[in-house]
Amino acid sequence: MGWWGILNSVQDTPPGKAVRESISEYSELTLPNDSNSLGSLFGGKLMQYVDLAGSLAAARHARTAVVTVSVDSMTFLRPVAIGQLVILRSSVNRVFRTSMEVGVKVLVEDLRTGQQDHVSSAYLTFVALDQERRKIVLPPVIPETQEEIRRYGEAGDRRAYRLRQKEREKG
Amino acid sequence: MGWWGILNSVQDTPPGKAVRESISEYSELTLPNDSNSLGSLFGGKLMQYVDLAGSLAAARHARTAVVTVSVDSMTFLRPVAIGQLVILRSSVNRVFRTSMEVGVKVLVEDLRTGQQDHVSSAYLTFVALDQERRKIVLPPVIPETQEEIRRYGEAGDRRAYRLRQKEREKG
Amino acid sequence: MGWWGILNSVQDTPPGKAVRESISEYSELTLPNDSNSLGSLFGGKLMQYVDLAGSLAAARHARTAVVTVSVDSMTFLRPVAIGQLVILRSSVNRVFRTSMEVGVKVLVEDLRTGQQDHVSSAYLTFVALDQERRKIVLPPVIPETQEEIRRYGEAGDRRAYRLRQKEREKG
Amino acid sequence: MGWWGILNSVQDTPPGKAVRESISEYSELTLPNDSNSLGSLFGGKLMQYVDLAGSLAAARHARTAVVTVSVDSMTFLRPVAIGQLVILRSSVNRVFRTSMEVGVKVLVEDLRTGQQDHVSSAYLTFVALDQERRKIVLPPVIPETQEEIRRYGEAGDRRAYRLRQKEREKG
Amino acid sequence: MGWWGILNSVQDTPPGKAVRESISEYSELTLPNDSNSLGSLFGGKLMQYVDLAGSLAAARHARTAVVTVSVDSMTFLRPVAIGQLVILRSSVNRVFRTSMEVGVKVLVEDLRTGQQDHVSSAYLTFVALDQERRKIVLPPVIPETQEEIRRYGEAGDRRAYRLRQKEREKG
Amino acid sequence: MGWWGILNSVQDTPPGKAVRESISEYSELTLPNDSNSLGSLFGGKLMQYVDLAGSLAAARHARTAVVTVSVDSMTFLRPVAIGQLVILRSSVNRVFRTSMEVGVKVLVEDLRTGQQDHVSSAYLTFVALDQERRKIVLPPVIPETQEEIRRYGEAGDRRAYRLRQKEREKG
Repeated sequence: MGWWGILNSVQDTPPGKAVRESISEYSELTLPNDSNSLGSLFGGKLMQYVDLAGSLAAARHARTAVVTVSVDSMTFLRPVAIGQLVILRSSVNRVFRTSMEVGVKVLVEDLRTGQQDHVSSAYLTFVALDQERRKIVLPPVIPETQEEIRRYGEAGDRRAYRLRQKEREKG
Repeated sequence: MGWWGILNSVQDTPPGKAVRESISEYSELTLPNDSNSLGSLFGGKLMQYVDLAGSLAAARHARTAVVTVSVDSMTFLRPVAIGQLVILRSSVNRVFRTSMEVGVKVLVEDLRTGQQDHVSSAYLTFVALDQERRKIVLPPVIPETQEEIRRYGEAGDRRAYRLRQKEREKG
Repeated sequence: MGWWGILNSVQDTPPGKAVRESISEYSELTLPNDSNSLGSLFGGKLMQYVDLAGSLAAARHARTAVVTVSVDSMTFLRPVAIGQLVILRSSVNRVFRTSMEVGVKVLVEDLRTGQQDHVSSAYLTFVALDQERRKIVLPPVIPETQEEIRRYGEAGDRRAYRLRQKEREKG
Repeated sequence: MGWWGILNSVQDTPPGKAVRESISEYSELTLPNDSNSLGSLFGGKLMQYVDLAGSLAAARHARTAVVTVSVDSMTFLRPVAIGQLVILRSSVNRVFRTSMEVGVKVLVEDLRTGQQDHVSSAYLTFVALDQERRKIVLPPVIPETQEEIRRYGEAGDRRAYRLRQKEREKG
Repeated sequence: MGWWGILNSVQDTPPGKAVRESISEYSELTLPNDSNSLGSLFGGKLMQYVDLAGSLAAARHARTAVVTVSVDSMTFLRPVAIGQLVILRSSVNRVFRTSMEVGVKVLVEDLRTGQQDHVSSAYLTFVALDQERRKIVLPPVIPETQEEIRRYGEAGDRRAYRLRQKEREKG
Repeated sequence: MGWWGILNSVQDTPPGKAVRESISEYSELTLPNDSNSLGSLFGGKLMQYVDLAGSLAAARHARTAVVTVSVDSMTFLRPVAIGQLVILRSSVNRVFRTSMEVGVKVLVEDLRTGQQDHVSSAYLTFVALDQERRKIVLPPVIPETQEEIRRYGEAGDRRAYRLRQKEREKG
């Protein structure tokens, strides 16, 4: 696979780590104070959980302080009821030298029935910083499963679009 | 302008409202509990503020309950220090029949010097719901200034990209 | 106007700043957790917002750290419902060498109708501190509009009453 | 004592209750999130505690739902450090048919030394509401100690001033 | 195994469920506001997490509303630093007709190194309630691994001690 | 009484302090956000209050920083409704050289009727630390009333049980 060779040719790149080493699960029980006027969870509260879940995967890949540089996309598929358990699964999709795309999938479990529903998906970009708050070169991430390889490819497409957008805004 | 005519031809579309009727300003003082391990504001906390600020503009346009359906893009340009005042300006960029894109610009004011810096920009999509939680047809938004017209156009580009993405995921 | 001359004769008084330079607007969306047993906003929560809004105006006038030294009066005109937007407008009414009276007017907007109601008015006194936590001499504030001049006068009356009260408590 | 006879002549006034029946003590440990930029407790947070402490005394006198109608005065005598224990003592000073003045005294205890300092005093006015949110006629409060009688008298002075202020604002 | 037969002979006991069906993992990132005067996590905050983690396992076993009836033991083995990730693993150890003992093991992960330490163990008792808030008879729990069987036995010892204690307090 | 002599024979033990010097009262008004799915107070929230109340008594006895080392027992006798006042009374039951057992009794007051109910009892163990976070030898506690002497004895029984449990786990 071409991309892997290219990453390895970069002089100071640390050795790669498997996607599975960054897989994180984070959960929160939704509380009454987080309900909007319709009685379901505020979108902004779910964003806060997603950022936290994403930062866990990023920190486990980088093993240093990480900060969010962008939310590239986040969709809300259905409302979340108060009292339900929110389960967030995150992992690093792809590393771009000093930044990494993290994917977060959000499920909701109704504790009375055990039913789990997919309520949101998000893609965020993080960078890792050293003690002087300078960006560090990240170890590349190695996708191993079919699913991880698909996400790796799509992360590249999303980045290409963002770069085109930036060009247009400047030009 | 083409778009305006098209919106008017829709049978049940309510009369348009100017962008300026939705302009909102929301502010928060950052607190110690919202600091990450580097001593600056958590990205997730800023997302929560952005969602709230965006929902104010959406609610002022729709004058009914609104919910977030997606964060289409949010960039973090620089860290926010604890104790600084975060100022969020939002307005409806464009309406797509039952959904609306809201833009949020985030500034930070250092209260000791009065200096304001641009720290983040975000685009979110909201829908408005009636009592039975059904989406309602929104009044179109009328851009009046050069800036508002530019944002109106760009909102269309962003939507076109999102629709292409969805197509690809299905196909 | 007499007062102006007097302030200028003080040796180390910095040059005056207009009231409008301190005008601040701060807003909060009321949340379920802030409701009292009647389902409306706790008075204490509104006090917390008022203090924060007042401190913004004080900080913008002094451009240094400010602390509250007294709440001189705060009235609650009507209950605030949960889910409504609280809008707080504040500005410095008058400076008394090292202290300043700040006025805060509180409105509530029903986001579904756009109606705004006046729910509270408050007067607070702040001082500004230097690095060693010593009070600093403040720039006088210059009222420019009829309204600002009226508030300037009333601030003097309120202070005279407080001084008389203190005398009585000692005597 | 004249006032007592007058209150009794009112047809529907319930029998009086002693001040001591409303005496309340409420305490809070100050937390890192409540610190201002100087590292001490936000004035607004102390206001929130004071309102809560005052409402306990008011509720114990009225034994029905109570709401704050005004903060008549609150002074901050010294800063409160984070980690210290705030102790608030409150009682009803005087009843004015449908409203009551509550006094709150705030102490701070340094848990490492046991030293307690007086950091704030406040006077608030509460009303009590029935199920339909109408003001109810309150039982008069009976001061028994020298201290309670002094506070009873001063509450009358403060009310007289507030009524004069209102007159002036109208006239 | 004797206990199993006994549980089955109870007329209205629902069929048993394996321990593994109740295994839950819950995590929290410790925040600045949760630090005590020594800069580490408040014991009370960890208790709150433990109760929540325990209730997840109890709810997954009972699939109805559950409430805590006792904390039977909780030990704190070492302080938790702010900024660390707390990971809580819980499962039902044993069912006593209408109550169940849940065990919670608390680990802390240092996100910069990946090291995990065991910081606390706790045993709590929960009951499950029906719509009218009456206790329901629970399905017995079936331990399958050596570890689960050991915990099952110890849960019985702890309960025997608690019953003896109660006897002594009465007698 | 034997135990007293023994404590005094320890070389570096500071002079004893009466139980009454550690007696603390702490109260909290339960808020909507702390309600579980049945509309009553989360067990974990009550645990947090109990730990705080216990630490006040421990700090008043030790007059240095204290940390929780175990919750030895906590029972929930009845649910607590939102809006009720929780009152927590704590004192040091017994000192074991470097650790101390604190008892916490939890009452709930219905502010509309004044009725108080006993809702929980808890026993926790705390240690006191010096600046270098080393355990310090505590002053013994001197029980003076019949009740305090009874609690002193029971604290010894509870400790004996815990030591036996530890032995068994090792052996």
